[in-house]
Amino acid sequence: MGTRLREITKDQPKGMLVIDEKPIIEQSICKLIEMGIDRIVIGTGYLAEAYERLALQYPQIKCIRNDEYEKTGSMYTLYNLKDHISGDILLLECDLIYEKKPLELLIKHKERDVILASELTGSKDEVFIETDEFHLLVNMSKNRNKLSNIYAELVGITKISYNTFQAMCHYATSTQYDSSKLNYEDALVGISKNIKIYVQKLRNFAWCEIDDKHHLYRAKHYIYPIIKAKEKTYPPVKRNILLNPGPATTTDTVKYAQVVPDICPREGEFGDIMQFISTELTRFVADPEEYTAILFGGSGTAVVESILSSVIGEDTVLIINNGVYGRRMCQMAEVYGLKYIEYRSAPDEALDLASLEAVIQNSTAKISHLAVVHNETTTGLLNDIGSIGQLCKKYHVYMIVDAVSSYGAIPIDMNVMNISYLAASSNKNIQGMAGVGFVIANKAQLETTGCLKPRNFYLHLYEQYKYFLATKQMRFTPPVQTLYALKQAIIETRLESIKERYSRYSEAWEVLIDGITQLGLTHLVKKENHSRIITAIIEPNTPSYDFEEMHDYFSRCGYTIYPGKLDAKNTFRVANIGDITHKDMELFVSLLKQYLISISYYNSRRENNGNSKT
Amino acid sequence: MGTRLREITKDQPKGMLVIDEKPIIEQSICKLIEMGIDRIVIGTGYLAEAYERLALQYPQIKCIRNDEYEKTGSMYTLYNLKDHISGDILLLECDLIYEKKPLELLIKHKERDVILASELTGSKDEVFIETDEFHLLVNMSKNRNKLSNIYAELVGITKISYNTFQAMCHYATSTQYDSSKLNYEDALVGISKNIKIYVQKLRNFAWCEIDDKHHLYRAKHYIYPIIKAKEKTYPPVKRNILLNPGPATTTDTVKYAQVVPDICPREGEFGDIMQFISTELTRFVADPEEYTAILFGGSGTAVVESILSSVIGEDTVLIINNGVYGRRMCQMAEVYGLKYIEYRSAPDEALDLASLEAVIQNSTAKISHLAVVHNETTTGLLNDIGSIGQLCKKYHVYMIVDAVSSYGAIPIDMNVMNISYLAASSNKNIQGMAGVGFVIANKAQLETTGCLKPRNFYLHLYEQYKYFLATKQMRFTPPVQTLYALKQAIIETRLESIKERYSRYSEAWEVLIDGITQLGLTHLVKKENHSRIITAIIEPNTPSYDFEEMHDYFSRCGYTIYPGKLDAKNTFRVANIGDITHKDMELFVSLLKQYLISISYYNSRRENNGNSKT
Repeated sequence: MGTRLREITKDQPKGMLVIDEKPIIEQSICKLIEMGIDRIVIGTGYLAEAYERLALQYPQIKCIRNDEYEKTGSMYTLYNLKDHISGDILLLECDLIYEKKPLELLIKHKERDVILASELTGSKDEVFIETDEFHLLVNMSKNRNKLSNIYAELVGITKISYNTFQAMCHYATSTQYDSSKLNYEDALVGISKNIKIYVQKLRNFAWCEIDDKHHLYRAKHYIYPIIKAKEKTYPPVKRNILLNPGPATTTDTVKYAQVVPDICPREGEFGDIMQFISTELTRFVADPEEYTAILFGGSGTAVVESILSSVIGEDTVLIINNGVYGRRMCQMAEVYGLKYIEYRSAPDEALDLASLEAVIQNSTAKISHLAVVHNETTTGLLNDIGSIGQLCKKYHVYMIVDAVSSYGAIPIDMNVMNISYLAASSNKNIQGMAGVGFVIANKAQLETTGCLKPRNFYLHLYEQYKYFLATKQMRFTPPVQTLYALKQAIIETRLESIKERYSRYSEAWEVLIDGITQLGLTHLVKKENHSRIITAIIEPNTPSYDFEEMHDYFSRCGYTIYPGKLDAKNTFRVANIGDITHKDMELFVSLLKQYLISISYYNSRRENNGNSKT
Repeated sequence: MGTRLREITKDQPKGMLVIDEKPIIEQSICKLIEMGIDRIVIGTGYLAEAYERLALQYPQIKCIRNDEYEKTGSMYTLYNLKDHISGDILLLECDLIYEKKPLELLIKHKERDVILASELTGSKDEVFIETDEFHLLVNMSKNRNKLSNIYAELVGITKISYNTFQAMCHYATSTQYDSSKLNYEDALVGISKNIKIYVQKLRNFAWCEIDDKHHLYRAKHYIYPIIKAKEKTYPPVKRNILLNPGPATTTDTVKYAQVVPDICPREGEFGDIMQFISTELTRFVADPEEYTAILFGGSGTAVVESILSSVIGEDTVLIINNGVYGRRMCQMAEVYGLKYIEYRSAPDEALDLASLEAVIQNSTAKISHLAVVHNETTTGLLNDIGSIGQLCKKYHVYMIVDAVSSYGAIPIDMNVMNISYLAASSNKNIQGMAGVGFVIANKAQLETTGCLKPRNFYLHLYEQYKYFLATKQMRFTPPVQTLYALKQAIIETRLESIKERYSRYSEAWEVLIDGITQLGLTHLVKKENHSRIITAIIEPNTPSYDFEEMHDYFSRCGYTIYPGKLDAKNTFRVANIGDITHKDMELFVSLLKQYLISISYYNSRRENNGNSKT
């Protein structure tokens, strides 16, 4: 009946809900037919006519109506079908979207009774499954407290042998409780004392049940695009491992998301995509009610410039320079004739917050803004923006953060950290394609910049913001296809979560650090000050070392590494971002070992002596 | 022997030349095998060992050496193979790259003797073919004067029946000339008096013979990418007809060109692509020796801003404002505090050049630059930049042209027209994806801007230029995938040529203009002042007309139209750019007719009376 989706279900049953031009039950039916299923029985009830119309299109379908649907449970509906079932069945709920892969798995599964399960989705309407040590069903419930362990979550796709189906029917009619209210899950649990029901948990399996409007939003915007992307049959793209600090290695689904029918970006359909992108980019770091993402066609540097040129008035901005990207902000302040104070600090050491505070305290000029780079890509030094934010709060200074290389990997909370403006881009940890830069801004503070005299045109932040508010469009032609890729990248980032992504990156980083240490190399920034996403490594101190040669060697193996960018020290850089895992880094370390052996910097025999440095 | 490619052929025969990791003859062999050919005989000579090594990999191959290769022609080599030929053959030259489609055509062709031919390529090494009215071979020659007509150009792929092969061998041994010098073409011509040899000409067929370094460049950069794109088997993308003024309808090959293995844009391989793009974009409008294209991640507006903010010093710029895009340049001059004179002119009438000249003459401020929009997208008015350029020359003024909406469609010669700086973008007539803007500049003039005080950072033209010169890279992360698409779009533009593209656009425009006139609608700008690529049409003067409604109606039919942008007059706009033809426009006109009938603006019965306006 779908009472929690009244607006949609008042005229149609839930299975007829349309996503991407097709009712979800019809999508499910097509997948079953594709798998070779040629008899489909639908137990109908509420607004049964809709399913009966569908049955006219598909000769495989038979509908059996449960006229008591308002008062009965799902087992009653299933029981009703018994005269039409004569063998093993797949039992599917009508309000699911799912990728078809597991259908094949269930059909071919060596067990004849198999519940399909997933990791916990957090949908707030989960049916939790308790199993024994052999992953056999013990109990199921929506109330986790009723279970002694939680192994997985029920998907709503179950393979049931004919014998088991008969046992369920028998259970339903012989139970002492009011059997008409029974759900099929209860019957499965009921018979599981006597019949082994195997629970098959799948990882990385895109599916969603749709019970309320939150589920519907999640289904339409997060889950369905993944299912669609996974089920398209595009040829795989050669995988390169990019260990440069972005653009990073991307998934094939992000790559192919660029291929869309041509669209004019002034169309409403595209506006909706822009709105989705803006909201979701904000949500990763702040509440979209108070903050907003303003998008530009351009690089990370472009949006840092957008902020600096657009939000600072006649007062002074304090710029922290402890690397190339900090210095770049000073250059921007210079060309726009901003009043600024450059605060220099060593590129490989943590900032001295006391000394920074002293500068703010002692400044004769009124400091209205402070600008800092989060992860200095020059070295991998992570500036402590949390503490700097508190300093800014104390002195009523607006904080600007260049988070181009940290956003999407290192968790950020703009509100807690007191960040007013943050710059990031599409092609680093968010794992999209290059071409879009964005500013995430506190709306209230951004609103106050409307009265400042504009210093430029294309990159003007306030104008871009106002235009987007009014139209859901960028002011000037946006990079359409890059935005489609960004949308897909956002969906995949949400699916993984930024916290998990940072764990994955950190795991790869640990492999890198252990590996280079083992090989006698050292990195510039101490572990405790390190971003764990890009590492400046001191070059081997031997005349036979040559960066270009090493670079080309890695290149031939499908790995891209990056030169250093420090004036004073000889380093090369290795990033560990993008669609890579610790396994890719293990291979990298073993390739590095081969290279170091080939230039006689590392001698494999010494490994055993624990003395690897020549 | 490939004597015209000495550097490549000194160590290997020409067929072993590698494009995209595989020798071209091996690519040819793979295509033949794919088509079901299982016996391949290679007549070798110069450095025959290379082919013999290849034969070890492919059991289908047999090599027969002609030890006299230095002194003999291709017929001698072919004659040598006679003991190994026992049926109909396909005869292929070794130095070809080609798409495999025509192999199937030849194999299935109802004629047993078929010469594959193409339209003239202009490669300067063509073998021209003369035929009779039935397309039967009469003569072939590299010298066009020896032929009485030229029907097509020899490709070098020929289907020869066994009988004909024997006749060729017989001809070769019985001719009165020195038969050892004979080429196979001569033998074909020789026997064509008695045997019908059909010449099959193919259009839009990508192929190339490689005889010298110009051919090699053409093969690698223009032809091979097309073959590759055509032979990839990607699913077709839903075709939308965009009649908005860009982004335009694109080919599927351009769409899929975005899908490439991940690459760091600081790699040399990507630098080569950037260099290709920059050179070829320049070549469309100027000599790359004297002019250069500077690329940015950003829209057309971004690069117009780049020019205005970067090349003007303390003197005055005269800006012609006869539409939204002219006005936009004034806004830019304003925010950067440039000295400027706004020259206003009506948006729907040709400029008054005498009055413009008077402004230049009478200006008390020194006018160093003049800025004008080529095709005013607001209306479709084409400003006469040729004449304005001559005016600029007379008064020693540098001309800046916003050609964002004309570049790639309307032929431009920067040198002849005296244009110093021209702005354009990737997503209009060049038929690529949005995200790249570029400036084409006279190098000598651009060099003089290095001493000006910078007014911004990301869009600074001189810095971007210098950096590209030194590194073949953009200063900041470029939109990598958009650039790959642009490369493919450039290749396709070259293949069509800008002149032909403008003919195609013009043909569609004529259909549009005839159609709307027939339907009783009028367009704003007179034909003689019209760009023929975007048309502002006066809205139907009836209360039942509603732009949004009409827009949505077209949208449902797969067509996107665009609202007007004039303050004074009610217009809507229709562009006729992108990968569309006059046939798409015919359908558009008939859909428009249906719409006008539905709002009772147009009455189909009146058509016959020649009075279509209500």
